[in-house]
Amino acid sequence: MADYDQNNVFAKILRGELPAHKLYEDDDTFVLMDIMPRGDGHCLVLPKKPSRNLLDVDADSLAAVARTTQKMAIAVKSAFSADGVTVQQFNETAGGQVVFHLHVHVIPRFEGVSLKPHTGQMEKPDILAANAEKIRAALG
Amino acid sequence: MADYDQNNVFAKILRGELPAHKLYEDDDTFVLMDIMPRGDGHCLVLPKKPSRNLLDVDADSLAAVARTTQKMAIAVKSAFSADGVTVQQFNETAGGQVVFHLHVHVIPRFEGVSLKPHTGQMEKPDILAANAEKIRAALG
Repeated sequence: MADYDQNNVFAKILRGELPAHKLYEDDDTFVLMDIMPRGDGHCLVLPKKPSRNLLDVDADSLAAVARTTQKMAIAVKSAFSADGVTVQQFNETAGGQVVFHLHVHVIPRFEGVSLKPHTGQMEKPDILAANAEKIRAALG
Repeated sequence: MADYDQNNVFAKILRGELPAHKLYEDDDTFVLMDIMPRGDGHCLVLPKKPSRNLLDVDADSLAAVARTTQKMAIAVKSAFSADGVTVQQFNETAGGQVVFHLHVHVIPRFEGVSLKPHTGQMEKPDILAANAEKIRAALG
């Protein structure tokens, strides 16, 4: 497996070098809106510590990511009165991974509404901001 | 959210009332082959304790499922010399969930090979058994 790339886009966001719609942060994890959402409210859970993906993440970061993923699944379901939640996590290019810092996709789902393509259309910033505000409110 | 159904198929497997291609077991988790795989080596990580999905699972079971999911991702990648691994977890019918006991899908992936449909074709038992044996060997 390739080494961790310190210049991947999530590393830059975590260092504050790029902006993001931040939803949540604790000592070990950071959550932001996916800017190419597969559905309204699609967000991403990251460990703060560098890891390429699930294959190399340390135990403490993995446990923290799992806890935050549950928290976000509950929050987005509530924020959008969703019928369900789909969680996805991609490892290496063949596995669907595009940015090589571990991240878990948390996507609110609605009866009869299919997922849009992975890394499809860029969402409008004002829609992302409005959806982010709904999720922050649901986090309390 | 609906209550946990004690008669879902995974509850029956965990009680030994139905057979399964078991890959791994520890105090908190159980891993089996998906009988309608989206790709060779597709397996499922379950907590032993009843929980409907990610929205209601207790913290200890969630942490154990995350640990075992990592273990299985590494094992299936090795067992099939896969190029990547896709992890999916579905919550409620709208989220893609079919069996209402929490489970995480771990699917080896290969360059240029798409996932087959979710809950598509039943795989032949001898192929499932052979793939299970490869994964058990990779677990060491």
